[in-house]
Amino acid sequence: MSSSLTVSILGCYAAAPGAFKNPTSQVLNIRNHLFLIDCGEGTQVALRRNKIKFARIKHIFISHLHGDHFFGLMGVISTFSLLKRTTPLTIYGPVGIKEVCLLQLKLTQSFTSYPLYFKELDSKEPERIYEDDLVTVTTIPLKHRIYANGYFFQEKTGDRKLDINAVLNLDIDKAYYNKIKQGGDATLEDGTVIPNKDLTFDPPKAKSYAYCSDTMYKPVIADQIKNATALYHESTFLDSHEHLCKPTGHSTAKHAASIAKEAKVDHLILGHYSTRYGDLNEFKEEALTIFPNVHLADDGEVFTF
Amino acid sequence: MSSSLTVSILGCYAAAPGAFKNPTSQVLNIRNHLFLIDCGEGTQVALRRNKIKFARIKHIFISHLHGDHFFGLMGVISTFSLLKRTTPLTIYGPVGIKEVCLLQLKLTQSFTSYPLYFKELDSKEPERIYEDDLVTVTTIPLKHRIYANGYFFQEKTGDRKLDINAVLNLDIDKAYYNKIKQGGDATLEDGTVIPNKDLTFDPPKAKSYAYCSDTMYKPVIADQIKNATALYHESTFLDSHEHLCKPTGHSTAKHAASIAKEAKVDHLILGHYSTRYGDLNEFKEEALTIFPNVHLADDGEVFTF
Repeated sequence: MSSSLTVSILGCYAAAPGAFKNPTSQVLNIRNHLFLIDCGEGTQVALRRNKIKFARIKHIFISHLHGDHFFGLMGVISTFSLLKRTTPLTIYGPVGIKEVCLLQLKLTQSFTSYPLYFKELDSKEPERIYEDDLVTVTTIPLKHRIYANGYFFQEKTGDRKLDINAVLNLDIDKAYYNKIKQGGDATLEDGTVIPNKDLTFDPPKAKSYAYCSDTMYKPVIADQIKNATALYHESTFLDSHEHLCKPTGHSTAKHAASIAKEAKVDHLILGHYSTRYGDLNEFKEEALTIFPNVHLADDGEVFTF
Repeated sequence: MSSSLTVSILGCYAAAPGAFKNPTSQVLNIRNHLFLIDCGEGTQVALRRNKIKFARIKHIFISHLHGDHFFGLMGVISTFSLLKRTTPLTIYGPVGIKEVCLLQLKLTQSFTSYPLYFKELDSKEPERIYEDDLVTVTTIPLKHRIYANGYFFQEKTGDRKLDINAVLNLDIDKAYYNKIKQGGDATLEDGTVIPNKDLTFDPPKAKSYAYCSDTMYKPVIADQIKNATALYHESTFLDSHEHLCKPTGHSTAKHAASIAKEAKVDHLILGHYSTRYGDLNEFKEEALTIFPNVHLADDGEVFTF
């Protein structure tokens, strides 16, 4: 079974929000899961504007606790309650996120109408933090001014695809189909063993999405996200401001492209632009000098892979 | 000296923000002070949209810690820092506001670029919390689901106005003018005492602004804000939903108008509308049955008195 992976950009600008430049937040749809990634101020309004159903969001992944990735979280938590949600919500983020959310709920003397769970992160190594039958989520340790993680969302490889002509020609009983799809060989009534590769096709390539923001250029990220379908990598600066990367803990478009190239991903999405720049195309042009398949995130943009 | 008082409505809708309905925040300009009152999510963007200079805001008054009055505060605090502000900022609000703000600053490992002060409130009686040569600010204890205060902003009555013809005719030395403006009588060289009332006019009436949101109908408020120039009073509901006032801690348009009438204010501004209603004019019509001078707040509206 193949399904498309879509990324809806709710906001993709660095630092303070402007009237038409939202801070970071995006929604990944992978195997019909809606994962909300980061939650800058105004995220709940952007969700409405993008017509994303609140009730379908069951997991929120926060990269780090800088305001432009985080100050919209309490609004989302509260509004879900106002809507009398009952579906549980789990929030993944750095240690401290639970305290700050629960303190605010305590001060408002209001508790959520739904079960609210936190999974606090402090590991500096990649950590599998979510798994179900279809998808896994693993942290991508980043290098920023404060503790930060990206997230790697991966479809699980599905069953092998049955070569229906082959199994019919060999008159194999339907009872064995599941075993074959799971990789087993077939044994005919005369004892002949038919190897699995003659009965099946490879399953569709499992898709994956790597979210890396905010971070300095950290080459080892490429090893972890090899062959990802799409990489969202921050590119706060153009090469002309490369000297600002170290003090601020950010990357250039070329840094992002270098990770994409090294990881051999299919697509690179740039975002988290400093608002000092007028023309976003300069980010794309710089990245294209290193990696061929570059997309520019912008608020309201939806990418389908 | 007479000056106008202006109120810029940044947001005036109850509960969850929508794409075009901002939660509560407003800026009062009184004697050239810009006071930011409440700070729902998106306030910093609304400040920009309304072209209000961040640097001129030195005092923020938070009524209570429900999200729709408060979740934009951290964004404002942080953005002021990003802009490298150095002017001190003082925040007035319920006990707990300091802890939740400082915790978030601690988690981001960033401290403000400017001195940040908190004046935490817990009194159930009106309390003078700000005073300078021109203006005073006093809390207005409200009745809501959680601890909440409105704020009463009052110009100080200025000096009496010199009757320049009178003092010239009597050949009173300029050295005495200040004493006379402050209410003193004049003594002529022959010993005659000229009473102050013959030398001065009354100063212009001091203006004042009462902000009351969120609150149930609380008649005693009227005693405190007698003859105010303008009252902003929440009117979450129409009369048809009056039964919701008690469980939610809110008022109807008629409640607001009753306070305005009892206090004999000049102007009533309604706001904090539940988003369940389509036509705001219904609020005005209901209030007009009780009080004649009713204005409807709306996002972006500016009132000058």
